[in-house]
Amino acid sequence: MAAICVLDKFEVHKNEEFLKIAKGLAPMLERKEVMPVSLLALEKGQEMEPVVRAEETPEQLRKHALKKDDAVILDFGTHNVGYVTLHLSSVGSHQDAPAYIYLKFAERLDELTVNIAEYDGWISKGWIQEEYVHVDVLPATLKLPRRYAFRYMEIRVIDVSLKYSLVVERVSMEAVSAVAVQEGVPAEMAAVQERVPMEMAAAAARGDMSKGEISAEARERQDSRAGDSLLAEIDKVSVQTLRNCMQTVFEDGPKRDRRMWLGDFRLQARANYQTFKNHKLVKRCLYLFGGLTFNEGKVPACLFTEPTVEPDDTYLFDYALLYGSVLLDYYEETKDEKTLRDLYPVAIRQIEIGVDYLNEDGIIPDHSEEFWCFVDWGENLNTQASSLAILIYAMRYGMRLAEHMGDEAKARWLEQRMKTLKKKAVEHFWDEEQKLFVSGRERQVSWATQVWMILARVFPQEKNRELILHTIDVNPEIRMVTPYMYHHYIDALIRSGEKERALEEMKQYWGGMILDGADTFWEVYNPYNKYESPYGSVAVNSFCHAWSCTPTYFLRKFF
Amino acid sequence: MAAICVLDKFEVHKNEEFLKIAKGLAPMLERKEVMPVSLLALEKGQEMEPVVRAEETPEQLRKHALKKDDAVILDFGTHNVGYVTLHLSSVGSHQDAPAYIYLKFAERLDELTVNIAEYDGWISKGWIQEEYVHVDVLPATLKLPRRYAFRYMEIRVIDVSLKYSLVVERVSMEAVSAVAVQEGVPAEMAAVQERVPMEMAAAAARGDMSKGEISAEARERQDSRAGDSLLAEIDKVSVQTLRNCMQTVFEDGPKRDRRMWLGDFRLQARANYQTFKNHKLVKRCLYLFGGLTFNEGKVPACLFTEPTVEPDDTYLFDYALLYGSVLLDYYEETKDEKTLRDLYPVAIRQIEIGVDYLNEDGIIPDHSEEFWCFVDWGENLNTQASSLAILIYAMRYGMRLAEHMGDEAKARWLEQRMKTLKKKAVEHFWDEEQKLFVSGRERQVSWATQVWMILARVFPQEKNRELILHTIDVNPEIRMVTPYMYHHYIDALIRSGEKERALEEMKQYWGGMILDGADTFWEVYNPYNKYESPYGSVAVNSFCHAWSCTPTYFLRKFF
Repeated sequence: MAAICVLDKFEVHKNEEFLKIAKGLAPMLERKEVMPVSLLALEKGQEMEPVVRAEETPEQLRKHALKKDDAVILDFGTHNVGYVTLHLSSVGSHQDAPAYIYLKFAERLDELTVNIAEYDGWISKGWIQEEYVHVDVLPATLKLPRRYAFRYMEIRVIDVSLKYSLVVERVSMEAVSAVAVQEGVPAEMAAVQERVPMEMAAAAARGDMSKGEISAEARERQDSRAGDSLLAEIDKVSVQTLRNCMQTVFEDGPKRDRRMWLGDFRLQARANYQTFKNHKLVKRCLYLFGGLTFNEGKVPACLFTEPTVEPDDTYLFDYALLYGSVLLDYYEETKDEKTLRDLYPVAIRQIEIGVDYLNEDGIIPDHSEEFWCFVDWGENLNTQASSLAILIYAMRYGMRLAEHMGDEAKARWLEQRMKTLKKKAVEHFWDEEQKLFVSGRERQVSWATQVWMILARVFPQEKNRELILHTIDVNPEIRMVTPYMYHHYIDALIRSGEKERALEEMKQYWGGMILDGADTFWEVYNPYNKYESPYGSVAVNSFCHAWSCTPTYFLRKFF
Repeated sequence: MAAICVLDKFEVHKNEEFLKIAKGLAPMLERKEVMPVSLLALEKGQEMEPVVRAEETPEQLRKHALKKDDAVILDFGTHNVGYVTLHLSSVGSHQDAPAYIYLKFAERLDELTVNIAEYDGWISKGWIQEEYVHVDVLPATLKLPRRYAFRYMEIRVIDVSLKYSLVVERVSMEAVSAVAVQEGVPAEMAAVQERVPMEMAAAAARGDMSKGEISAEARERQDSRAGDSLLAEIDKVSVQTLRNCMQTVFEDGPKRDRRMWLGDFRLQARANYQTFKNHKLVKRCLYLFGGLTFNEGKVPACLFTEPTVEPDDTYLFDYALLYGSVLLDYYEETKDEKTLRDLYPVAIRQIEIGVDYLNEDGIIPDHSEEFWCFVDWGENLNTQASSLAILIYAMRYGMRLAEHMGDEAKARWLEQRMKTLKKKAVEHFWDEEQKLFVSGRERQVSWATQVWMILARVFPQEKNRELILHTIDVNPEIRMVTPYMYHHYIDALIRSGEKERALEEMKQYWGGMILDGADTFWEVYNPYNKYESPYGSVAVNSFCHAWSCTPTYFLRKFF
């Protein structure tokens, strides 16, 4: 399913004052040189599973005299985002033909064994991080102009000549981020770290742990309730995910799409308050969204930053509504009155627009056939009930914003409407027999619907607790597929008083990614199908994806 | 057959004084913007023959909204060498994925229908003029850093996205050459032009002639002895070939190899004296070869200019010997005594080295199994007799150099040795029964052997005339395959008093390339196999090749 939205008569209303504020907050990126830690030789195992056939130190690199079809794979130790420079030379006779090389950058090792030529999904092949480069004159310093997100880099010689071989003298990466680019846990987070169990911190600090050891250890610990080193690892990987997505804006994925999506931004901001505390970047992004509304004042689902900041002509009902939640989180974190005053009208406008969508039955019509209310990937997910729940959820945040603003009238209006909508939600979507919420004409039972109804607090906490436990028990077939949806599930567990289970689920889900080799958390993770992709191939999946970074938020805030 | 030479114990003797002189003579390249003249849509006809399915004006370019797999082909009207700039934009929604495009530059239209993926020849795939480019931000001005030699340019969209299409607003080329880059016949050649029959000049000046018209016209005229417009066209194409090979040195092919080969340089210099008269560039190249000898003082077969001037570790017996011929031509054209004095020892040294190769029978041993004496492409050609003939030929030039230098002793020594060697040539290689020269143990009869024996003046002119006519009559199976060898054949005809036949052969051979669509003359031309390649595929053949530019020399000097 190609999930895109193209709006006709798309009219952007730029608020130049807001955009100026946002521009003034643009970060100078932090930069750090990162070097490969080892040199791999791969072979393809079963399916596309890569098998490391040999490993060498990076010092061995320059000893390889590469001929046609020869390849080397560099492992940079962990996932980073940045710019790559290669120092190339030759051995043998004088270079008598261009060196033609193929470069591939991979977030996950198996991206190097996927057959790219076969990719025929609905999003662009252009996202695959590959380059074909001719080097006419050796020796050469090849400073690649594009930014890559990767841990592994393949250098394959398409051709040299019979008279010379290519030598890769040195490859380095200039990693970039809006926050300090460094291995391990950043210094500014030391205070936060104290709240994390000591064992976690100790394990996280152990930078010399090799991936294999971590996996083995993690696997063992996962089975044990004392498995805090897995939690420490989850925290560390969350932080790295967040760091690598924090660039000139909160990007959703530094490999793909490299845009700022409002839904991702909301979760990143939450994780950021518990870790980097880069409030400036949150403020900047709030002003960007607020300064780029369209048509009736809708906030776009995502923004582009190049060549100038522009909104995508995509409206997502849930994302727009959640703008107020980001603003409230920001205000409560910073007490920044000016920003609250500036952006409050934008947040409230989203709720008004949401209310306008209510039909004569007082619920949101079913838009599941369109790319209109995201909720989760999953082709068969019905989002009607969730969309109502998210409207209610947004109203609660709107009400608190109105209270902070002293806007009593709006606060009362929201309170009233919320009450009505909660009744409507129960009337239309609660199935007393199943003891579950249903959605759409087919009365679909999904995990997502239950989670959002819990977060909307349609029922009181104790009943929510029963509902979530009942959902786990029933295990509806329409499951959650993204970490974005899993975030809301964990949130629902915690808000229902099921903190221990939340911890367990995080270990299972995000811990599962670590056991499957994650250096940063993924856009999509189906524990039962490592190669699941909403796009037709994992070759274009993002393996460092903003909406996946939130375990650090939960661990640091609630545990 | 992979024809390469790799010398062990290769010791370069740089003459810094000579190299300094050469450096001081480096040309500032002339630059001119060249625009496409039309837009083609191609399809593959029989075999790899391209068929133009549709044609549009270049103004239509920006009206194409290009989606995945769409392509446009630009025709720049004729062959040029230079740097390309693309102005790209998009239509539809905001660009939400990198535009991934494939660019291909073709000297001949059928390079666009060759299946490159199948190329598996012995020279580098890197010579194929293709690029894969990601454009992350549109609109963009894409200034390609590499130089291309082409008439046609294909732009194919590998992928965009469902939300936008690529638009190519404008493509331009900055053509470069050591001599004025312009269409038609350059102004500085007007004086030379007067020697060319008026009809030729008139036809050459008709720049607006479309390729189809020229071919039709040429085809008609070729059958007629009054076909001077074909000669005019041959002259024009020769000049364009020479111009495009004249860069910072006399390159052999601006697409491939982009080096200076001594054998090509010799012919280019001769064509240059009749056309551009850029003596400075000839002088520069003479000093480069003279300043980069190796081991016993040998002149290398070819030079690289990047990253610094360096000789290839390739010795070609015939090319080295012909250095003296280039020097003599230059001296007789310019009367530049200083250069003669500087470089005379280098030229003489090549002859001495040649003499050292003589065996006890007083002939050159057979090296046909090696890439040692070029003579011509052709896997089965035996070059033993030719190598002796070329030594004799070089001695004649050496003798004249010695005379200009007032070096009587050397002149007499050369005269004596020449006489002896001519006798040896007849003794060992003349077959009185066949009335032809033979070569090697198998006593091979080839065109090349006869031609070089004639140019060596082993026999007096009248007997040479009989020999060349007899050769034509017998038509030995071991034929000539390169324009380089054809040059020497035409030369042999003219020197034997067969000027009319020389003209006829030029019309047949170089005229044949024009009928087959040449804008510049080719590295390899077999009238019976348009797709002949010494490398395994025409995809890597050079279609603007220095050694093919000499008809202008013959036409302007002898007719």
